[in-house]
Amino acid sequence: MKKILVLGAGRSSSALISYLIKNASANDWQITVGDFSKTTAQERVGSSPNARAIAFNIEDTENSKTTIRDADVVISLIPASLHTLVAKICLTEKKHLFTASYVSDEMKNFHAEAKTNGLLFLNECGLDPGIDHMSAIQVIDTIKAEGGRMVSFESFTGGLISPETDPENPWRYKFTWNPRNVVLAGQGTAKYLQDGKFRYIPYQQLFQRTTPITVPSLGEYEGYANRDSLKYVDVYGLQECKTVLRGTLRNKGYCSAWNVLAQLGCCDDTYQMDGIDAMTHNDFLSSFLESGKNVQEEIRKCFSLSANGEELKRLNWSGFFSNEKVGLEKGTPAQALEHILNKKWKLKAGDKDFIVMWHRFRYLLDGKEKEIQAWLTATGEDETQTAMAKTVGLPLAIAAKLLLQNKIHRWGVVIPVAKEIYEPVLAELKELGIGLQEKHI
Amino acid sequence: MKKILVLGAGRSSSALISYLIKNASANDWQITVGDFSKTTAQERVGSSPNARAIAFNIEDTENSKTTIRDADVVISLIPASLHTLVAKICLTEKKHLFTASYVSDEMKNFHAEAKTNGLLFLNECGLDPGIDHMSAIQVIDTIKAEGGRMVSFESFTGGLISPETDPENPWRYKFTWNPRNVVLAGQGTAKYLQDGKFRYIPYQQLFQRTTPITVPSLGEYEGYANRDSLKYVDVYGLQECKTVLRGTLRNKGYCSAWNVLAQLGCCDDTYQMDGIDAMTHNDFLSSFLESGKNVQEEIRKCFSLSANGEELKRLNWSGFFSNEKVGLEKGTPAQALEHILNKKWKLKAGDKDFIVMWHRFRYLLDGKEKEIQAWLTATGEDETQTAMAKTVGLPLAIAAKLLLQNKIHRWGVVIPVAKEIYEPVLAELKELGIGLQEKHI
Repeated sequence: MKKILVLGAGRSSSALISYLIKNASANDWQITVGDFSKTTAQERVGSSPNARAIAFNIEDTENSKTTIRDADVVISLIPASLHTLVAKICLTEKKHLFTASYVSDEMKNFHAEAKTNGLLFLNECGLDPGIDHMSAIQVIDTIKAEGGRMVSFESFTGGLISPETDPENPWRYKFTWNPRNVVLAGQGTAKYLQDGKFRYIPYQQLFQRTTPITVPSLGEYEGYANRDSLKYVDVYGLQECKTVLRGTLRNKGYCSAWNVLAQLGCCDDTYQMDGIDAMTHNDFLSSFLESGKNVQEEIRKCFSLSANGEELKRLNWSGFFSNEKVGLEKGTPAQALEHILNKKWKLKAGDKDFIVMWHRFRYLLDGKEKEIQAWLTATGEDETQTAMAKTVGLPLAIAAKLLLQNKIHRWGVVIPVAKEIYEPVLAELKELGIGLQEKHI
Repeated sequence: MKKILVLGAGRSSSALISYLIKNASANDWQITVGDFSKTTAQERVGSSPNARAIAFNIEDTENSKTTIRDADVVISLIPASLHTLVAKICLTEKKHLFTASYVSDEMKNFHAEAKTNGLLFLNECGLDPGIDHMSAIQVIDTIKAEGGRMVSFESFTGGLISPETDPENPWRYKFTWNPRNVVLAGQGTAKYLQDGKFRYIPYQQLFQRTTPITVPSLGEYEGYANRDSLKYVDVYGLQECKTVLRGTLRNKGYCSAWNVLAQLGCCDDTYQMDGIDAMTHNDFLSSFLESGKNVQEEIRKCFSLSANGEELKRLNWSGFFSNEKVGLEKGTPAQALEHILNKKWKLKAGDKDFIVMWHRFRYLLDGKEKEIQAWLTATGEDETQTAMAKTVGLPLAIAAKLLLQNKIHRWGVVIPVAKEIYEPVLAELKELGIGLQEKHI
């Protein structure tokens, strides 16, 4: 019997835990789900005879050691900043570790020791990062195998909402992932490669320097650049590429409306605002304006917006000009903004989210310019069994299964760019209805 | 005999050291000037029989202790981040300390011990902070003594260049102070109080949300808000004030041109640029643009500028569109920008700088709205005896003299807001030609 320990029973864990439970008997697995709240863990586990719920707090080192010691593999969905703690115990206790988070510098440092001990620390094995890596590399490997030379790689992914959810919501967006990360998105400088030149986009330009995206048979979207596209040059073997750009996909109009909030400083998380307890939504925006007397009109002028335009429509729908109290005792601008947005953007019963991932590969084959577009969509079942939870959790679950079935033989700190991993994971995802479509141009 | 130790013989030390040497015989002072470079210190000291130059490195703790032990008061002009080290030794050796730097949290922590030991740690005693505190508080104290109630306080200071220096320079600005601080200026969020409301300006809005300033008999300027105006509410006793705004003064047109550099991300100091060694000035700007092909035209369009307008004129004068190599091996955007600007903005022989400080006080007296404007200007003699060096160094020198003459009896970590300090310092500054003018409206 093999023992799988899942850490974190939050919003992204539902599909992962369901998959593990479903496959438990056939594979002779015992599943343990640990969460800060045992009740939350219990809800995910339900009445399965192959799974149990426990209270788990990674900062309680002794108990964490005991719990991890009892497992064969650990799948961690707790906040990325805590993965170092999990990894340290996994090293001591000689356990494999799976996460959907970016490899941090601390995680990187565990590579040699994990490798020596024959442990797999597989990271970036969710949706983005995760399926994006696997599906892009699969196409790139195919192009190279045919003798093609990559010229350009662009990739955008976004978690949106499906058409039937809140049809009146002009943002076409709700919080399907950590709301805090949505509010703080893009802070720093985005770096990418375009026509052979390094390009930099500071935060203040990010939401006005968007890329139009047309996904075949789906329609038009827009994307803003992610922080660091340059690191994918080596990871994906794109050294010959002239253009390498990764970004976040949104419905059209999202970015120019969000740009107003970003430009005003509403996403700043570096200081506590004064007097937030007495503020209305309108006061909140007002405090970032020069006069602040007629908020909507001042924003319109300041950003040269049309009075009936898409930006003010979105801000208005979100209640930014209302006299409703923010309802926070204290907080940074980013915390207040998240709190206001959450009133309309929180998923409600029956809401369905909608994931879109889109890659464009341009390459030279026999002297001719060729292009492949590959894209994936996924729709949630409801506000719990979200597409986000499926696309983040299932790659982790499948990879863990492959390891326990002795089908993966890579050790150390790894991301899923090797054929040995991406091929079977993508194949099973396709069986589960999460497959990419391709168009060759 | 009293011994004065001056630490740092850089660009702001000339007037301070000249003043001390001039007053040394009459006051029976011996002056020691310590600098990382003994040669630099020697240049400042010249052939005075009352002064000597030494090599000094605050990070060499043992030698620093010996040197400070031998002094009665220490005047530190070394970088503000090193003042904690100086202060620690001054505490151990029971010496007074004078700086022109903002009181850091570390410095604040020395208050009780300095006070117990009867030591004066006088900070913020230069120009800005320094003369701004003293001259503002003097007027505020007068208004309050007359029974007036403060309604609004605004204060702007800037180090510019005098009309005869580089008359063709459209920025009307050169580096008369730490160039790095000029490039990084304003990063973070500016906080102030306006008509009773807290107001926040993020960096991306700072240079487009300027305040027009008319200095009586001088002309029109513009100002951008400093980081934290709110802390002056308590320091200046402005609890009744509805508006409290401090900022940096510039010649008209500076901010809208600088805004282009700030918006493009050229002032970012958080990452190393790629390929900077091969870059021209034009390439540097290009890397922050979307296409980057016709830099000047793209900037014009991106910021809706007039082709013959003031912004492009300034950028052009600074050589930003030229094919001259940047000339750095590596660096952050901010470092590259400073390097490019320095080619035209470095003071050359005979250049004269020009300081403008302007305060506006609005208050109620006997039910009537009253206003006082107070302003100061100072012109440098040349590129060494700058107005900046005079206005930063002389307040420190005068305050040190007052202490050594037993005319100050305040201990602990102090800024010059007490009458006992500001009155004699301002009086002597006026004798030295650095006096504020006032207009009552």
